[in-house]
Amino acid sequence: MTTVTVVEKILSANDRLAEQNRARLDLAGIFGLNIMAAPGAGKTSTILRTIKALTPQITIGVVEGDTAAVTIDADKVIAAGMPAVQINTGGECHLDAVMLSGALTQLPLDQIDLLIVENVGNLICPAAFSLGTHANVLISSVAEGDDKPYKYPNIYRGIDALIINKIDLLPYVEYNLDYFRRGVELLNPGVATFPISCRTGEGVDSWVQWLLGKVGK
Amino acid sequence: MTTVTVVEKILSANDRLAEQNRARLDLAGIFGLNIMAAPGAGKTSTILRTIKALTPQITIGVVEGDTAAVTIDADKVIAAGMPAVQINTGGECHLDAVMLSGALTQLPLDQIDLLIVENVGNLICPAAFSLGTHANVLISSVAEGDDKPYKYPNIYRGIDALIINKIDLLPYVEYNLDYFRRGVELLNPGVATFPISCRTGEGVDSWVQWLLGKVGK
Repeated sequence: MTTVTVVEKILSANDRLAEQNRARLDLAGIFGLNIMAAPGAGKTSTILRTIKALTPQITIGVVEGDTAAVTIDADKVIAAGMPAVQINTGGECHLDAVMLSGALTQLPLDQIDLLIVENVGNLICPAAFSLGTHANVLISSVAEGDDKPYKYPNIYRGIDALIINKIDLLPYVEYNLDYFRRGVELLNPGVATFPISCRTGEGVDSWVQWLLGKVGK
Repeated sequence: MTTVTVVEKILSANDRLAEQNRARLDLAGIFGLNIMAAPGAGKTSTILRTIKALTPQITIGVVEGDTAAVTIDADKVIAAGMPAVQINTGGECHLDAVMLSGALTQLPLDQIDLLIVENVGNLICPAAFSLGTHANVLISSVAEGDDKPYKYPNIYRGIDALIINKIDLLPYVEYNLDYFRRGVELLNPGVATFPISCRTGEGVDSWVQWLLGKVGK
């Protein structure tokens, strides 16, 4: 019982800080996006494709969450010409509102239209922690198989858009798109869904149009 | 500080139960294997390939860990003719020694030579919890990319063998095997490594021979 109480207090404190993050983004006129996915589903690749599609129309700030002290992803974003901040969670399996709050102080918020937060690669823990962003996006790679909505239902319930990445691999993997989508539909009926390939660029336009509508630019 | 203390107590209690699990397996003459991986790397596929290769030479019991109340994986193992028990972690991001202890009571331990535990799909949390098994194996899929050892170092440090799965996809993904292996070598020098394809069966023999050596049959 003690442990449960501690967890409840942490979640509640996190929610209050998430509200503060949201207010800070709103004040600066920034739309905040939280991208979640399993390791290697293509979070960074999707962010790089999105930057490429939206430059120079809008300015994107990126927060990169990693469990280790590596800057592989942040370096790629900076090389693409956008400001990025790396969060090292120190082994924690998700980002939280405290971490994002710290990262926001290091970004030029007055120059940014869209903030993209790349969460830690994990289909379980990130679903439980609000960050204060305006939308949650999940990326699922077809190489992961078609049963993921059935196995990791919580993360599918709380998302505003779903990207199905690596569709260029469909000819080479066993993947039933109908089965996958039926699973998603049970958890999150009608969720906006974008099959894309970061490798070939296929489908990226539809995703970017949806995002532009949210950013309002 | 309070939270840290609670976590330490949980870990210590887990380690004591892990020792009990180990003693139980040793008494029954069972070799216990803990398989970890990101979602969709091919844990169940590897288990099914292993069962196929080792039947009827040895009897394998399987414990399937999932965060949700689904029996997709356990059903596949039972269809392959082996006893399986499903653990629903109730949203938890890893198995622990308590969960395994409960599952062991539901398996016919006197008939089993090899116990395979399929952990929850996650590259972070499972690394922190001993189960009492004799060896940890990590499966990494080439579709996840070649930078995973750099991004999720903890899980690579504690493994006894590494399976690189889905090598049939190598012609279709950007993946530098040398870069991947350099990362692994920094964390776990000389770890036994088996590139395989569960789809085509390539490389499975070497993995199974290593495993047979451990089981001692």
